[in-house]
Amino acid sequence: MADTVGFIGLGIMGKPMAENLIEAGYDLVVYNRTREKAEDLDGATVAESPKEVAENSDIIITMLPDSPQVEEMLLGEAGVLEGVGEGAVIVDMSTISPVITEELSEKAAEKGASMLDAPVSGGDVGAVEGTLAIMVGGGEEDFERALPLFEVMGGAVTHVGPSGTGQVVKAANQIVVALTIEAVSEALVLGSKGGVAPDKILDVLGGGLAGNKVMEVKREKLLEHSFDPGFRIELHHKDLGIALAAGREYGVTLPVTAVVDQMLETLKMRGRGDLDHSAILTLIEESSAHEIGS
Amino acid sequence: MADTVGFIGLGIMGKPMAENLIEAGYDLVVYNRTREKAEDLDGATVAESPKEVAENSDIIITMLPDSPQVEEMLLGEAGVLEGVGEGAVIVDMSTISPVITEELSEKAAEKGASMLDAPVSGGDVGAVEGTLAIMVGGGEEDFERALPLFEVMGGAVTHVGPSGTGQVVKAANQIVVALTIEAVSEALVLGSKGGVAPDKILDVLGGGLAGNKVMEVKREKLLEHSFDPGFRIELHHKDLGIALAAGREYGVTLPVTAVVDQMLETLKMRGRGDLDHSAILTLIEESSAHEIGS
Repeated sequence: MADTVGFIGLGIMGKPMAENLIEAGYDLVVYNRTREKAEDLDGATVAESPKEVAENSDIIITMLPDSPQVEEMLLGEAGVLEGVGEGAVIVDMSTISPVITEELSEKAAEKGASMLDAPVSGGDVGAVEGTLAIMVGGGEEDFERALPLFEVMGGAVTHVGPSGTGQVVKAANQIVVALTIEAVSEALVLGSKGGVAPDKILDVLGGGLAGNKVMEVKREKLLEHSFDPGFRIELHHKDLGIALAAGREYGVTLPVTAVVDQMLETLKMRGRGDLDHSAILTLIEESSAHEIGS
Repeated sequence: MADTVGFIGLGIMGKPMAENLIEAGYDLVVYNRTREKAEDLDGATVAESPKEVAENSDIIITMLPDSPQVEEMLLGEAGVLEGVGEGAVIVDMSTISPVITEELSEKAAEKGASMLDAPVSGGDVGAVEGTLAIMVGGGEEDFERALPLFEVMGGAVTHVGPSGTGQVVKAANQIVVALTIEAVSEALVLGSKGGVAPDKILDVLGGGLAGNKVMEVKREKLLEHSFDPGFRIELHHKDLGIALAAGREYGVTLPVTAVVDQMLETLKMRGRGDLDHSAILTLIEESSAHEIGS
């Protein structure tokens, strides 16, 4: 018999992911703190608590904002671990701390359940289209069992290692993306103030070793200062916080991540947390009293 | 009648570039401070001084290590500007300061000559194969005149703006390359110490917004710690010095470039200036007491 599936967290990411599972034929049992969002979901059974989701599911997916929410849904009163059955798999697709992931995984094991960490990238568009990149940490057998679900929700699905490593790779990913945006921003402001058209800078740099996906995907946002998200500054700031905390736990020095994290903090404090992360550019522009292309 | 061509500076880059021009049918007049290197060049006429090169050439190409050498060859005793004819074009293909480039361009104009700055990327392999990327600053007419030569020496040739802007774009390029190597290094060390195989990190990150050319081109060097250059740390450190000096002149804040510049300084002081720039990785590894993949 096919696994029954629970889904907890029906926000901007979780809702379309759950909808894709329903469309693929899964009978979902769902829970959301704001119950209306769960009731909006056609074809799903709404549970009264995370515990009730767990009691009725072989695989329980969580898609939540950050570590505290995942801890609450799993460990809190009427939480998943109160209802989870022997042999069930908890699949946390949130982006949270790999250190907390390992702790939660151990607590799940005490109940006879196992846990996968399976953070995603690709944003709300990827969630709607079912093309998310999914980085999975945990046991091989659990990965194989959840794989059909991942293939509904995502495009590139990679099992990267044991518990926690999905989150570690996601943190590594967020480091490279943030630092690349910062690098491109410094290059654009220097080049523009030095008299070069910004689009020409991107054209030339894109053809060589400096080439990167950020310059392609964020090209229009950078050139037009159209910073509608996309992926918000405040979420990227949260993610670099996870990376830095993991570095502190593992004993890894992340000097430039630390600097860019501070820059994201500055952007948040200046009221730009809701903008796309490519708005890092605006901080270099302000510091240099120069808007590119002007 | 076709332009006669002079070439000054026959080092690891200049020599193969000059050879490609000779092979394409140009009669070169050449000068090199160490005369033997000039005499080694088959099919070229060796001049006694930069002045003599200029006296016998419509287009004078320079390919030298840094600003002081270009200044010396152009402005020094028996330098290019003592011999340059009315209407000649000086094409400086070295990577030097855009600020000094503009000064030299003005001095050339006083002699009735003009100047292009045309720094390259693509390294010694690109120089040998004639596939260099060439970023050109200066007048449109001068650019068109030198274009046949650029097309012999390079692949992608782009006229980016007025005098100095070729150097500005090169500086922007070097910023993005150095910061990307640093970003990938932090990601690799965090990921590896967090339990993920380094090749898997590169695979996953390469498929999304974190994707960049550095992870492709430097993959083996990073994974195998095989840091034969390639492009040397000490040259990249020189280039970031140019970028930072240009930023200071133009009033552009480059906070992360400044940090990575310091890291390159550290690597030089630790005796690794001769390694490929991807050896930035070793600094993060040392700081974290962890070699990736171990």
